[in-house]
Amino acid sequence: MTDLSFTLGTELGSGPGRHGRTGTIHTPHGDIQTPAFIPVATKATVKTLTPEQIEQTGAQAILSNAYHLYLQPGADIVDEAGGVGRFENWSGPTYTDSGGFQVMSQGVGFQKTLTMEQKDGQDWGREKKSMARVDEEGVDFVSFIDGSRHRFTPEISMQIQHQLGADIIFAFDELTTLMDTRSYQEASVERTHRWAARCIDEHNRQTALREGRPLQSLWGVIQGAQYEDLRRQATRDLVELSDASVAAGQRGFGGYGIGGALEKENLGTIVGWVCDELPVDKPRHLLGISEPDDIFTAVEAGADTFDCVAPTRLARRGGVYTLDGRLNLVNAGFKRDFRGIDEEFGGYVSENYSRAYLRHLFKANEFLGMTLCTIHNLSFMIRLVDNVRASIEGGYFEEYRAEFMGRYYAKKK
Amino acid sequence: MTDLSFTLGTELGSGPGRHGRTGTIHTPHGDIQTPAFIPVATKATVKTLTPEQIEQTGAQAILSNAYHLYLQPGADIVDEAGGVGRFENWSGPTYTDSGGFQVMSQGVGFQKTLTMEQKDGQDWGREKKSMARVDEEGVDFVSFIDGSRHRFTPEISMQIQHQLGADIIFAFDELTTLMDTRSYQEASVERTHRWAARCIDEHNRQTALREGRPLQSLWGVIQGAQYEDLRRQATRDLVELSDASVAAGQRGFGGYGIGGALEKENLGTIVGWVCDELPVDKPRHLLGISEPDDIFTAVEAGADTFDCVAPTRLARRGGVYTLDGRLNLVNAGFKRDFRGIDEEFGGYVSENYSRAYLRHLFKANEFLGMTLCTIHNLSFMIRLVDNVRASIEGGYFEEYRAEFMGRYYAKKK
Repeated sequence: MTDLSFTLGTELGSGPGRHGRTGTIHTPHGDIQTPAFIPVATKATVKTLTPEQIEQTGAQAILSNAYHLYLQPGADIVDEAGGVGRFENWSGPTYTDSGGFQVMSQGVGFQKTLTMEQKDGQDWGREKKSMARVDEEGVDFVSFIDGSRHRFTPEISMQIQHQLGADIIFAFDELTTLMDTRSYQEASVERTHRWAARCIDEHNRQTALREGRPLQSLWGVIQGAQYEDLRRQATRDLVELSDASVAAGQRGFGGYGIGGALEKENLGTIVGWVCDELPVDKPRHLLGISEPDDIFTAVEAGADTFDCVAPTRLARRGGVYTLDGRLNLVNAGFKRDFRGIDEEFGGYVSENYSRAYLRHLFKANEFLGMTLCTIHNLSFMIRLVDNVRASIEGGYFEEYRAEFMGRYYAKKK
Repeated sequence: MTDLSFTLGTELGSGPGRHGRTGTIHTPHGDIQTPAFIPVATKATVKTLTPEQIEQTGAQAILSNAYHLYLQPGADIVDEAGGVGRFENWSGPTYTDSGGFQVMSQGVGFQKTLTMEQKDGQDWGREKKSMARVDEEGVDFVSFIDGSRHRFTPEISMQIQHQLGADIIFAFDELTTLMDTRSYQEASVERTHRWAARCIDEHNRQTALREGRPLQSLWGVIQGAQYEDLRRQATRDLVELSDASVAAGQRGFGGYGIGGALEKENLGTIVGWVCDELPVDKPRHLLGISEPDDIFTAVEAGADTFDCVAPTRLARRGGVYTLDGRLNLVNAGFKRDFRGIDEEFGGYVSENYSRAYLRHLFKANEFLGMTLCTIHNLSFMIRLVDNVRASIEGGYFEEYRAEFMGRYYAKKK
């Protein structure tokens, strides 16, 4: 039975805080060349795209949300269908997150901090409105669909993720925000560690129960907010936990996720601390990142894969990436613009559809506009990360970064 | 310069009221094997599908609405883009309707009768709410988008349809309903005839103005409601008008549309009257038909092509065709139904997606559900008409009709 493994390619650096590299993640459903951008398929669909269109973007794997699929259609139904990949007709590698982020970010306070779009204000701490409550055992939460009450624990998250059957699954962690106190962060990291141990146990139990199915790989999630000592300790503790499990003849972590509160300014520093402590032979996933400058920073520090809803969400509102920065196609200026979105970038959408046509589709509320812009944005983001990979292999990472960043952010200067 | 022509294939019959046949319509953008179902691309998009997906359904041509494109994005913009086909990235044959139906069905009274979903009732005749007013010159109407006032005349419809640049365009006709009196129908048929003459003149003028562009073919539209004498006279008059134009060295009608109020019970009879009077060497389009029993009836009577929004509209609500009749995938009964929509019918959607997955997509408001059901329904309707064509060529039309109808409508018995 194939288990997940990682082959190291070319290293960009191996000094402190600088662990960028190329590599290959081998999964039971195929390989992922890293660094790689992984599109999000929240409810078992990359919104508006068929699997053939997802493939057309260059995507190597897709990531679904355990929380959403648990609520709708239900993890048992996905299980009966033969797992999330078969359910959604995607034959390549799949990821599911643990559901922790979604479950806990239901709390009003969390939402306000995490979306970054809302300012901290008078609503903070309205406990009555909070839709999630954390205790040592797990989290109680309320469904966003019908208000029904539910409970996630590390064990339940593992059971759900085994029902969903993705190749790469994540440990159930507690989410904190930059608003939490240092002492709360300490307590939370310790709790996340205890939950990680419970995840490993349940993961081994579920793996044994489901013998014969493709092996799923559990990845530990590293928290610790902006604190160097907490991040390093959390990483070392999780690696030790995994090693102990393997030494005991059980399965450990097949890779690691870097989660929690990351501010743009210290993103690279934090990923660097974590990668200082991580073994070279395990892949590292950075959750929720897609801004081009962040991608360069995170890859340089040592992250291998990324997921983010931004490229697809932006596309559904008519926002598109170009080599010279973002455009919003709904603007009146594109009414008679018969050029492609970015003719230099090229690709299926820029070569076949004008900005005027795409603008028309959005103005007329035609869904095809969303589909085409989603194909474009994912193609753009995936090719960017593919180019980063090629630049590491070719020894011109810094040159590529300077060239790309100089154009993409030129308008902002 | 290629002009539209029609090659007769196998005749199903040539007795009174029975003019079914196969054939080929040759257009500057390719051939259409008839009988053929033509999907509707109202606003220059077959809702939710890329051109590659449209092609995948087996569609040979698509039909857009002059009224919608005139209002949004504007016929001038489509013209600048190089015509509707290039605008929407569809390289095959294209049709546009004249806009007459949409303009005139804005009137409250018309809507109530034409949609068939609303009962005639107390709102009938609320003149204040009517959004369209017909006079000898043309029609005043109000935009459904912003309430702005507009006017269509036969000349304006021709100018717009030349800007849109479809291969097959339709004369601007007056729409009547089954509610109108016999005397109004008579007057209306006469007016439609005068408008047809103005359309031919303007069509010839526009063709001369746009020398070098692919030749567009103007089709006359036959009205006359349920009256045999009116239908026959309208047809003979239009054919005579066309012949006179050709005799005068001008272009005439390249084909004919059969429009207006058609009740299910007399559909075949009316198409039969019209086809009794039409020349064999011109193609005939029946507007707005897609019910399978109507297709068999209309083909037998002599119709060559059909368009209808029903297969795509139904798909966007989760309604799908199967060989055993319609299903609505949103029903709870499909929650754990892991079969394809119709495994005997097969095709891309039934072979790759379960009813349970499609139901999930609709319940979760995921647009991909609409896309997949649209591909399925168009594939179903197009293959049905393709099979009808094969059955005429193979000499087993009646057997195929009995077999298909026996299963498709079995549940209704």
